Amino acid sequence: MTVSNSSSENFRFALRVYWEDTDAGGVVFYANYLKFFERARTEWLRALGFSQEPMRSVERAMFVVSETAVRYLQPARLDDWLEITVRLVEQGRASLAVAQQAWRAGPGTAPQLLAEGTIRIGCVDVQTFKPRRIPAGILERLGA
Amino acid sequence: MTVSNSSSENFRFALRVYWEDTDAGGVVFYANYLKFFERARTEWLRALGFSQEPMRSVERAMFVVSETAVRYLQPARLDDWLEITVRLVEQGRASLAVAQQAWRAGPGTAPQLLAEGTIRIGCVDVQTFKPRRIPAGILERLGA
Amino acid sequence: MTVSNSSSENFRFALRVYWEDTDAGGVVFYANYLKFFERARTEWLRALGFSQEPMRSVERAMFVVSETAVRYLQPARLDDWLEITVRLVEQGRASLAVAQQAWRAGPGTAPQLLAEGTIRIGCVDVQTFKPRRIPAGILERLGA
Amino acid sequence: MTVSNSSSENFRFALRVYWEDTDAGGVVFYANYLKFFERARTEWLRALGFSQEPMRSVERAMFVVSETAVRYLQPARLDDWLEITVRLVEQGRASLAVAQQAWRAGPGTAPQLLAEGTIRIGCVDVQTFKPRRIPAGILERLGA
Repeated sequence: MTVSNSSSENFRFALRVYWEDTDAGGVVFYANYLKFFERARTEWLRALGFSQEPMRSVERAMFVVSETAVRYLQPARLDDWLEITVRLVEQGRASLAVAQQAWRAGPGTAPQLLAEGTIRIGCVDVQTFKPRRIPAGILERLGA
Repeated sequence: MTVSNSSSENFRFALRVYWEDTDAGGVVFYANYLKFFERARTEWLRALGFSQEPMRSVERAMFVVSETAVRYLQPARLDDWLEITVRLVEQGRASLAVAQQAWRAGPGTAPQLLAEGTIRIGCVDVQTFKPRRIPAGILERLGA
Repeated sequence: MTVSNSSSENFRFALRVYWEDTDAGGVVFYANYLKFFERARTEWLRALGFSQEPMRSVERAMFVVSETAVRYLQPARLDDWLEITVRLVEQGRASLAVAQQAWRAGPGTAPQLLAEGTIRIGCVDVQTFKPRRIPAGILERLGA
Repeated sequence: MTVSNSSSENFRFALRVYWEDTDAGGVVFYANYLKFFERARTEWLRALGFSQEPMRSVERAMFVVSETAVRYLQPARLDDWLEITVRLVEQGRASLAVAQQAWRAGPGTAPQLLAEGTIRIGCVDVQTFKPRRIPAGILERLGA
C-alpha cells in the first residue's frame, strides 16, 4: 500500500501538525499519533454513515480501544501535512481491528511513512463498560 | 460579527471535535479552546503567506502567547463542527493582538457562539526568548 | 505573595514539567498552564475535603470554567519543578473566582513567577449545564 | 509482579487522574496512558541520576520512542490514584525496552491492573534524529 494507492479499501484522512502536537524535541509527541489515528477512525466511521455521539446517547454503546501496537519510523514536524489511513483487518461481533498508517504528504514531496500500527477496538456499554455487540447497522456497513 | 459574515476582515477556520478534545464532563475541555484558537491563527498566518516553521528555522523568530482572556459561554460536544474566527485588533512592531471566537456550525443549525477571547502574541528570538521585531514580511502583510 | 509565603490563604501544589507539556519552541505550551492550574484547584478542593467525582455522580453537580485571564511571563522548560498557587478571591452562591500563579521552584534557585491569572468557575448541573448552587458542604468549607 | 512488590527491579511512580486526562466516555483517554508511562520513565531515569534536559543540551542526545505495544484492561476514572511501574527488559547500545504497567491504587482498595505494555526507546542525535550510542554514564547505571 502506498499513499497514492486509490484502492477503496483504504480510507484516508488528512491533517496538519500544529504547535499543540509537538514537543521540545521539535517533533510530534509520540502519543499524539494515537490521536491522529483516532481522528481518522472517527471520520472513517462517519464516512460509513455513523456518528459516535448518537451511538453513545441513543444506542448506549461506545467503542473503546483495547490494544494498540505502533512503530514510529520518522518524526513529523510543525506544519507537516499528514495523511492517515484506515484499513479494516479483522471484524468480530463485539470488536474489530484496523491497520493504520501516518504518511507525510504535501505538494512536491514524495510520501514518507512516519508511523504505523494496529488498533484493536471493542464495543462496550457506556455505563458498565462491559463488552456488547456492535450495533447491527454498523456491522452491516463494515461487512459491505 | 456573525459566523455567516463574509467580511474579509474575519478569517475563519473549521474543525471537528474529537474524543481527544473532550473530558469526563462530556464536553470540550476548556483549555482545548486555546488549541483551537491557535490552529486558526496558524492557518490565518499561512493564508497571509507565512509558515511558522521556516520563520523559526530561518529567521530564528517565533511567536509566543503573552496573554489570553477567554469567556466560555456554551459547551461544545463530541462530533460538533466548529468555526474559529481570527480578527486582528492591535498591531505593534513586536506584538499583536487578535480577537477570536468559536462557533458551533453545521448544516441545519443556527450558528451558536461557544467561546470568545483576546490573545496577545509577541515575537521573540527562538534562543533567548527576548522580544524582537516581527519579521518585515509579516508586518507588511498584516498591515495590508 | 511569594512562593515561600507560608500564609494559609494560598494553597500550593507542585508538579514536574514532562515532555507531554512542552512544544517545539522548547518550552511549556501555553495552554498547558490551564491544565496545571486545574490540577492545583482539584487538589485545593480535595484539601478542603471534596472530591469532584462523588460531587458529579452523587450530587449531579460539576464545576465548569466560565472565564480565564492569564498572563505568560517566563517560559517553563522540560524538567522544571513548578509550584502552582490557588487563592480564593471571590465567592458567590453558584460561582467563585480564584487567583492562580505558576512559579518555577526547586533547590538552589530563587522562585520565579512564570504565569498568573484569574479563573472564574461556575457550578452547573451535570446533565443540563444550567447554573446551580454550589453544594452546601463545599460553600461552608470555602467560607471558613 | 504486584504493585505491593518491594523488589528493587520495578520502579514505581504515582499520579492522580485529572479532568485533562479524561474523555467524554468518562474515563482516561487511552492515548494518555502513554503520557503516564513517559512520566514514570522520566522519573526512573532521574532516580538513576539523569535528567533529560542536560542530556539534550549538553550531550545533544535524546531518547525517542520507536515502538509501543499496550493493552488496555480496565478504565481509570477522574480522581483515581495510579501507580505506574517501569522495568527494564532489554538493553542495547543505542536502544532499550521497558515493560510498564498502570495500576489503580489508593487506600482501602485492592490494586487493579488497568493497562500494560512494552515501550522501545532509541537514543538519537537531537539534530539529525540518527541513532547514536546511549551516553556512557547512563549505560553504566542501567547495567548496574
